[in-house]
Amino acid sequence: MKKMCIIGLGLIGGSMAIDLRKRKFASHIIGVDNNKLHAETAQKIGIADEIMSLEEGVKAADVVLLAVPVNVALELLPKVLDIVTDQVVTDVCSTKKTIMDSVKDHPKSSRFIGSHPMSGTENSGPWAAIPRLFDGKVAILCDTDRADKDAVETIKAMYTALNMRLEYMNSDTHDVHVAYVSHISHICSYALAVTVLDKEKDEQQIFNLASGGFNSTARLAKSGADMWTSIFANNKENVLEVMDTFIEKILSIRRCIKNDRTEELTELIEEANKIRRVLSK
Amino acid sequence: MKKMCIIGLGLIGGSMAIDLRKRKFASHIIGVDNNKLHAETAQKIGIADEIMSLEEGVKAADVVLLAVPVNVALELLPKVLDIVTDQVVTDVCSTKKTIMDSVKDHPKSSRFIGSHPMSGTENSGPWAAIPRLFDGKVAILCDTDRADKDAVETIKAMYTALNMRLEYMNSDTHDVHVAYVSHISHICSYALAVTVLDKEKDEQQIFNLASGGFNSTARLAKSGADMWTSIFANNKENVLEVMDTFIEKILSIRRCIKNDRTEELTELIEEANKIRRVLSK
Repeated sequence: MKKMCIIGLGLIGGSMAIDLRKRKFASHIIGVDNNKLHAETAQKIGIADEIMSLEEGVKAADVVLLAVPVNVALELLPKVLDIVTDQVVTDVCSTKKTIMDSVKDHPKSSRFIGSHPMSGTENSGPWAAIPRLFDGKVAILCDTDRADKDAVETIKAMYTALNMRLEYMNSDTHDVHVAYVSHISHICSYALAVTVLDKEKDEQQIFNLASGGFNSTARLAKSGADMWTSIFANNKENVLEVMDTFIEKILSIRRCIKNDRTEELTELIEEANKIRRVLSK
Repeated sequence: MKKMCIIGLGLIGGSMAIDLRKRKFASHIIGVDNNKLHAETAQKIGIADEIMSLEEGVKAADVVLLAVPVNVALELLPKVLDIVTDQVVTDVCSTKKTIMDSVKDHPKSSRFIGSHPMSGTENSGPWAAIPRLFDGKVAILCDTDRADKDAVETIKAMYTALNMRLEYMNSDTHDVHVAYVSHISHICSYALAVTVLDKEKDEQQIFNLASGGFNSTARLAKSGADMWTSIFANNKENVLEVMDTFIEKILSIRRCIKNDRTEELTELIEEANKIRRVLSK
């Protein structure tokens, strides 16, 4: 069992702590968080066994987990690696290229595995931490060829303890894929939410009428700005490219509706229906 | 208990049949469907007790339910009312203005209640019919002031048997609200699905990586073209207006990301987060 240091005691760090302890991957969890309330809460509700400074925490651990937004991770990761002797370090950020680039010349970079466990909820803070958040979901490990073998094995074991399916890819490919399967969905959802809130002045009616369809498309719009502005900034080129295609598609749907081009719209919808091939249920 | 005639034995008609029979609103269900396979299947799996022509079915019933796409309803509704003596007629279409207008001068129009039970799945046909589809959802009754009181009471009793919450509004207001809380969500979802299918050539990767977020925003893209092209056509002006606002919002998100305007993007996301006020969970 490992001594873990979790930097960032929010939804992801907290939820990982719960299951990694329970499933005997971690024997002891040191929490690090510059938000005092988060740190105290995490200790009180049993997510962290003790709270330390970043330096003490990293020194005392076998495995260091950076569970902070990508802009914060970019700032902390070199500091963490400066302290590392033979600890294994990983992060959980939704974009990987800027993270991997930021430490590629660091003397300890082979102790770092960039990873992305693809799960979450729209809530945040240690109060949002829940058990079994990662079961059956995908964890992506990036650029593992440049890391130490034992470090890769440790992180594989960690995600296996979380019951995650492992995928391997380089960080460029990762960032392209997530722009498609995750980032654009959040942008849609934000745009949809502000559209409805802006125009539909009668909130009671939204509440009364919002059916399953609206709920599922607008759900992601609950996600916090701290995390998502830095994701978009760190995957800017890919996100802009996907947005351009999306805007093009929305505009062709608009033209079809405006000009009563039913046949063309039918074709487009039948094309969209093919998503059944890749959506499980 | 009522003798019902259900015209259109698909997801909605079939699901209503299951619960209305079980909950003793309907004693006998006559099915009408010009798709022979649907009609035979509905009878075989016990959705309809017998199959008749539209004329026979309407004549033999107390309550007539038109459960067909809005373009078909526009064609059939006047024919149904021509046959009606004192039967009660309702429809289930997602747009109400064109439907209400189409029969407002019909001598039997006071026997018709325009209604919209807001529930569904992305599947279709009698095979898709399921019990309890409507429990706890909203049914909207439109322009009830111009209908006979006994007819309104019958349709209220029908939706109450389905455990639905009733809302009343005029058909113009209905069409504006559903453009916001339902139609734009479907358009987003279609555009998202074609974007991803168009650009992400590696379908296995979509399948592997699609997380909860993508699943929930793209789910509606499974919905069929027959139904949705005619919804968009029948709510064209409202849908185009909502789309314009949506496109404006997407373009401002794009500008924020492109020009690194983090503060403005944060504001926009925090505005979107307010959707928590109206989304139950």
